[in-house]
Amino acid sequence: MQVSEIGEFGLIARLRRMLTTRAEGLVEGVGDDAAVFESVQGGFWAFTMDALVEGVHFDTAYVSWHALGYKSLAVNISDLAAMGGSTTSFALVALGLGGEMDVGAVEEIYRGLNECGQRYNCRVVGGDVVNSPQGMFLSVALVGHIPGDRFLTRDSARPGQVVMVTGTLGDSYLGWRWLKEGKSEDNTCARRHLYPQPRLEEGEKALYMGATAAIDVSDGLVRDLRHICEESGVGAEIRAAAVPLSPAAMETAQGLGEEPLHAALHGGEDYELILVAPYDDAVRFQEELGVAVIGEIREGEGVQVLEPSGRPIELDRSGWEHFKEE
Amino acid sequence: MQVSEIGEFGLIARLRRMLTTRAEGLVEGVGDDAAVFESVQGGFWAFTMDALVEGVHFDTAYVSWHALGYKSLAVNISDLAAMGGSTTSFALVALGLGGEMDVGAVEEIYRGLNECGQRYNCRVVGGDVVNSPQGMFLSVALVGHIPGDRFLTRDSARPGQVVMVTGTLGDSYLGWRWLKEGKSEDNTCARRHLYPQPRLEEGEKALYMGATAAIDVSDGLVRDLRHICEESGVGAEIRAAAVPLSPAAMETAQGLGEEPLHAALHGGEDYELILVAPYDDAVRFQEELGVAVIGEIREGEGVQVLEPSGRPIELDRSGWEHFKEE
Repeated sequence: MQVSEIGEFGLIARLRRMLTTRAEGLVEGVGDDAAVFESVQGGFWAFTMDALVEGVHFDTAYVSWHALGYKSLAVNISDLAAMGGSTTSFALVALGLGGEMDVGAVEEIYRGLNECGQRYNCRVVGGDVVNSPQGMFLSVALVGHIPGDRFLTRDSARPGQVVMVTGTLGDSYLGWRWLKEGKSEDNTCARRHLYPQPRLEEGEKALYMGATAAIDVSDGLVRDLRHICEESGVGAEIRAAAVPLSPAAMETAQGLGEEPLHAALHGGEDYELILVAPYDDAVRFQEELGVAVIGEIREGEGVQVLEPSGRPIELDRSGWEHFKEE
Repeated sequence: MQVSEIGEFGLIARLRRMLTTRAEGLVEGVGDDAAVFESVQGGFWAFTMDALVEGVHFDTAYVSWHALGYKSLAVNISDLAAMGGSTTSFALVALGLGGEMDVGAVEEIYRGLNECGQRYNCRVVGGDVVNSPQGMFLSVALVGHIPGDRFLTRDSARPGQVVMVTGTLGDSYLGWRWLKEGKSEDNTCARRHLYPQPRLEEGEKALYMGATAAIDVSDGLVRDLRHICEESGVGAEIRAAAVPLSPAAMETAQGLGEEPLHAALHGGEDYELILVAPYDDAVRFQEELGVAVIGEIREGEGVQVLEPSGRPIELDRSGWEHFKEE
């Protein structure tokens, strides 16, 4: 059986069964944004890793080396944000590249990594550079300290809780479409696609304020919220009118002939946080974190998005999945 | 300027200058086998990462998927061993593969990872699987706890100390040559190449017994010892007759028409430990760890290997370097 027959998520589900889920010192194993193990004297270490492949996750035709470095670290910091933030983190970078690659380009990647690290208090402390004649890839591993006595997970959403989201959604997808059409980087959505701003501070505050579940938006609102629902054994109901859209997204969508709500529901890589918290805390979260309350956790399963009339919107159920042939 | 013009080590040297070497909580930055940061209440966390690329670091013509998984974790555990061992460690794996890959093969890789993890008390807790149509790669990141109040480094060798090595050298290189000729896996050297046994316990004991510097043999004895000399600002003198060779290496070398001493000096991937300790402790190390005492640290620089007559052996100065064209 080929990987393409079961797809990325099918493969991951099979491999998860083979991995360690319980071990001394291990608090959270496979299946969350990061693995978490205990620190002595309170607090936890979150441990996460991502890989980006040229031609699959980035296209150097419209992503600068600097942006590539920045983003490859930012997406890992975003995983940390989804666990409840961190005061200090450390990162290692493995870079696979061919001998014909320009040294200045590699240095630009590292400049991007450092810029992101400085902004989010993450130290890029080393890594590996290996020969990869077939194509470039970047893999970043990150360890971050969570100082509190608990952390945010995907499996702790309960019926009756509210679903909230930081910032606005859809911008990154629209920015990606914008760049793919060969248009200028001087567009708010394009910049959000190239230089995502992980919500590290918001994750930390949300944990402190009593949020229970969280995930970062990497695959799209509907898909990522579905992960929370599956892991928690619940369903979710989202009000379409409450999903936050930026003026830039509205404008860029118009220029592209795209539907901004569709981009917000299904477009990925916004690296905003979906937060779930007790119903009574919603106003406090709105005031202190500026989040939008977009819906509620329900008994049952699956994600529904409702029009103002109450009618459910037909969702794009296929979404985009690696390996599966279209 | 292309990467091939300055080579792997030239590139790494440039990138090192760009990375964080000092930060709060960071004890050891770039330039050792692993980065090290402080744990609260004593002890340290060592953090290391490697990437293996198909066709560069492994050839599936003679490496089984199981061995690939095993080895990719073992080489990271070896980095941990070179810092002074660990009681507990956690690993993440990023796997880049094409959709045509067989699911059973991916599961075999994970079985190999788990087998190695179980042997060395390392929990494989998650990772990432990404689409990489151009070729396969594996990247492993590892975090391990070092319980003591210090750890082994590359920069702490001092003139007058002894240089020791665990096990025997050259086996892995000879095993690799053996496999490349299409011969059976049923050869001690071939097995050592496919299933290296990192010296985790020896690293931990050596730290406890007062060793100061260490490195694992991944690029070959001469080259790796040179790293210690460069980082410590010293030289080293090795007695060729004292370099430990296994009966299997002697026999396999004969079958291949290779020189076993050359394999031991320049062949890599043995994942034995080079240990440096005070002169007076040499006998104790020999008795308790079964190491071979192979030479001494001197004032000056560089590595010299002496014949019994005292004449220095002509060393293969070029060695094998990624990216550089032969």
